[in-house]
Amino acid sequence: MPAKVFGSPASSEVARVMTCLFEKDVEFQLIRVDSFRGPKRMPQYLKLQPHGEALSFEDGGVTLVESRKILRHIADKYKNQGNKDLFGPGALERASIEQWLQTEAQSFDIPSAEMVYSLSYLPPDMPLDTGRGGLLPVGGMHPSHRQKMEEMLQRFEKSRKDLGKLLDIYEQRLGEEEFLAGSKFTLADLSHLPNADRLAADPRSARLIESRKNVSRWLYTISGRDSWRRVKELQRPPSAEAPF
Amino acid sequence: MPAKVFGSPASSEVARVMTCLFEKDVEFQLIRVDSFRGPKRMPQYLKLQPHGEALSFEDGGVTLVESRKILRHIADKYKNQGNKDLFGPGALERASIEQWLQTEAQSFDIPSAEMVYSLSYLPPDMPLDTGRGGLLPVGGMHPSHRQKMEEMLQRFEKSRKDLGKLLDIYEQRLGEEEFLAGSKFTLADLSHLPNADRLAADPRSARLIESRKNVSRWLYTISGRDSWRRVKELQRPPSAEAPF
Repeated sequence: MPAKVFGSPASSEVARVMTCLFEKDVEFQLIRVDSFRGPKRMPQYLKLQPHGEALSFEDGGVTLVESRKILRHIADKYKNQGNKDLFGPGALERASIEQWLQTEAQSFDIPSAEMVYSLSYLPPDMPLDTGRGGLLPVGGMHPSHRQKMEEMLQRFEKSRKDLGKLLDIYEQRLGEEEFLAGSKFTLADLSHLPNADRLAADPRSARLIESRKNVSRWLYTISGRDSWRRVKELQRPPSAEAPF
Repeated sequence: MPAKVFGSPASSEVARVMTCLFEKDVEFQLIRVDSFRGPKRMPQYLKLQPHGEALSFEDGGVTLVESRKILRHIADKYKNQGNKDLFGPGALERASIEQWLQTEAQSFDIPSAEMVYSLSYLPPDMPLDTGRGGLLPVGGMHPSHRQKMEEMLQRFEKSRKDLGKLLDIYEQRLGEEEFLAGSKFTLADLSHLPNADRLAADPRSARLIESRKNVSRWLYTISGRDSWRRVKELQRPPSAEAPF
């Protein structure tokens, strides 16, 4: 029985796991459920939850739901196939990978997911990250809508500052080494891809990456991996250009 | 519990059922399974089976696998919602719809599916339907490959002739009425959409449609329906342009 991933590749959690499965040449099935009501697609596939969407992973009797636990499981179970550097050749390397995996989970994930989430609510042409905070237009907005936008602006700004401080540490680290845990692409880097690539691709948040040259170089390198490019293709919803 | 469709919208059978669900404004879930082996997608989603792919439909304890039975079930169970003309307002209209549904299932489906299937094997630039049969290039082909191509050419040619004779009857009918069963779009027309639209869209088979003006006008009208355009968008595999 091949491994099974339940969820949508549009979710950061699912994207993280699929990238790892592609890196490790693991045979798996992706099981997706889309809901429709007559001609309208129910929009849950677009919902960007602040802290991850539903994901479930089954592999030979094991069921896991936390994406980083799943990465470790895949790297361990399939250690002799595909990219063998992902979880390090030995205990020393693994300790460094673990440290950065935990930094991602504990410090990078929340502010980056909050930014992605608030960006999905804020107008695509709103200037943000200008150093002066975002500015809502003065008039013409329903008060409850305005309140929601202001809340999103605040969440965006707070997360942008938190993430900026963290990325200063990354900038330094990536000045010493090509990748977070050393000279090889590992789970530590892979785990950052879904949110980091979304922030870099959005003009409203790209400065966070672009203004740091080592972080930029790192993200450019890791987001060019075949495994990730493949996942990004699968993220485009087939009905993105649907006439409805 | 919403109705559930298991299968890929790339399948003609699944596409037929989804078009009907969209017409009837029925809430449903589409459950898709894609298989991957490392960076390679297993190509089953592209396989055009000559007589239909796996499809399963569940609705309130009922499980059905034959697409036209599913159409009848949907039109009956949801008769008071969405497009109410699909299965006719009364017994008289329904008899005519049934007759054309059966013509589609018994006479149109096999040759049209055979053509779609053989086209998926034959070179996209091969001139076919020229009135002189398809011509394989003289040299440069492995004998087993050549044998397969010749078999496909024969299947294409035989089906093209069978379908041409049938479409002459359609041409006459559609000179008398706007749609197959009368003045309204019904299940009779809907059931033809997946294969007819594929044949019209492929330059190697389009002449079969284009050379018959009433059939052309009819297919142009029915393939412009929102329900069908929606299904076509969902048929495009998200990884169609993937770099692998």
